Amino acid sequence: MYDSNRVLASMLSKDHFSKWLGIIIDEHKDGYCKLHYLIREEMLNGFGIVHGGVLFAAADSAFAFACNSYGRLSVALDVTINFVKPAEVGEVVYAEATEIYCGNKTGLYDVKLTNERGDLLAVFKGTAYRTSKDVAGNG
Amino acid sequence: MYDSNRVLASMLSKDHFSKWLGIIIDEHKDGYCKLHYLIREEMLNGFGIVHGGVLFAAADSAFAFACNSYGRLSVALDVTINFVKPAEVGEVVYAEATEIYCGNKTGLYDVKLTNERGDLLAVFKGTAYRTSKDVAGNG
Amino acid sequence: MYDSNRVLASMLSKDHFSKWLGIIIDEHKDGYCKLHYLIREEMLNGFGIVHGGVLFAAADSAFAFACNSYGRLSVALDVTINFVKPAEVGEVVYAEATEIYCGNKTGLYDVKLTNERGDLLAVFKGTAYRTSKDVAGNG
Amino acid sequence: MYDSNRVLASMLSKDHFSKWLGIIIDEHKDGYCKLHYLIREEMLNGFGIVHGGVLFAAADSAFAFACNSYGRLSVALDVTINFVKPAEVGEVVYAEATEIYCGNKTGLYDVKLTNERGDLLAVFKGTAYRTSKDVAGNG
Repeated sequence: MYDSNRVLASMLSKDHFSKWLGIIIDEHKDGYCKLHYLIREEMLNGFGIVHGGVLFAAADSAFAFACNSYGRLSVALDVTINFVKPAEVGEVVYAEATEIYCGNKTGLYDVKLTNERGDLLAVFKGTAYRTSKDVAGNG
Repeated sequence: MYDSNRVLASMLSKDHFSKWLGIIIDEHKDGYCKLHYLIREEMLNGFGIVHGGVLFAAADSAFAFACNSYGRLSVALDVTINFVKPAEVGEVVYAEATEIYCGNKTGLYDVKLTNERGDLLAVFKGTAYRTSKDVAGNG
Repeated sequence: MYDSNRVLASMLSKDHFSKWLGIIIDEHKDGYCKLHYLIREEMLNGFGIVHGGVLFAAADSAFAFACNSYGRLSVALDVTINFVKPAEVGEVVYAEATEIYCGNKTGLYDVKLTNERGDLLAVFKGTAYRTSKDVAGNG
Repeated sequence: MYDSNRVLASMLSKDHFSKWLGIIIDEHKDGYCKLHYLIREEMLNGFGIVHGGVLFAAADSAFAFACNSYGRLSVALDVTINFVKPAEVGEVVYAEATEIYCGNKTGLYDVKLTNERGDLLAVFKGTAYRTSKDVAGNG
């Protein structure tokens, strides 16, 4: 039997880059994850706004936690991201991943990135390939 | 008159996150950029492979350097990425951005991510919105 | 002053391919369009299911009617589509376009394709470039 | 043993919508397909240019013929398309599908749409899911 909390704990304990991002999980359940993090100076690009990769990364973490929540090891296959509004130093950014579809081999997830005022920053849509392996390494 | 070297120097000098990634520019010219970086432990996700955001980020930097090369401030509008093969600690990853199209308001760029053996890791396609501003802040 | 009904009527009157598809508009308002059509034999591909282009086309029409609803001539820049479930001859397919974001130069729209039982067939996300021209040719 | 010509013949014989499009195959081999067709009045949208779905459809056919060329039944999972330039009545449009990657479960294909003068009209990138079934129904 899987346990989505145990799956998340197993993933987070080894996730060095999510730690560097400073990700804090707000809510996690089957097919869903909401998290937030603070934009720091070292996350900026040459135009003084958050680097696209840093926004993408937080959405990608939320996506990974949502699509692996069932305990089946799932990996990102394809992702599209639309950038709507930049984020600046000191802003808290939220990433909320919801499930659009979960089939036998693939799953489809939507992640919305917003700031504290609720402004939409970016929209992320990811397709996961669901392997036949366990996340935790065993049952 | 713009100078693509000056544009790149101006962007890089303030690009904190590209510095954190350890990006080294191999070649830069109008509509083109090739760079590489080393995968470090702090770039890994919970499965012991490079975090998707770290692969995306390097491609996004190459894309930004290519589409801003003409001196017109350009920002990412939409990006799609397809993940083909993971990268591990100690691998050197190359990102090569080439121009598919450059119009008055938008530009379209392709970025291929490969490892030292030439294996394809990911394919990135980005649409830039070309503003009417200068990258360097003046002419 | 624009009038979204007049905009739609102007677009539909000349839209030969939407006519061929047999599109019927269920609802149309600012930033929104819902329509449906029937899958016919001539819409099938070589595997006996609806051709991907025929599903895309209906979503693209809903997207165009939604993003042009304000009277500003808008054209598709980038689109992503995820195919979830095929449709067969005799099925009625619904396309519902909703606005995620509408800025000065670009707009972002989500289109869901479903069948009569409410099964999700495909998810479409489109970025529109908003020109400075009028849809109707004048005000 | 598969035979890519036999696979193509089997697919084309039942492909009603590709017939409606008037698709003519210029070249077909493993992982590759080039085709062309003529833009007719019934393919236009409300702005007097080719409907986005009609451009997508030809690229989708080229993609399907390329990714099914090995005889393994393959279906489109995700597609992204970037529209660069419209096509008008009387233009001949070419779609050329090339393979970026072909793995065990998925394949990645690039399709370029051009007109007779070689102008780029659109760029299509498709991910195929490779089932364990045969295209031709037997070996």
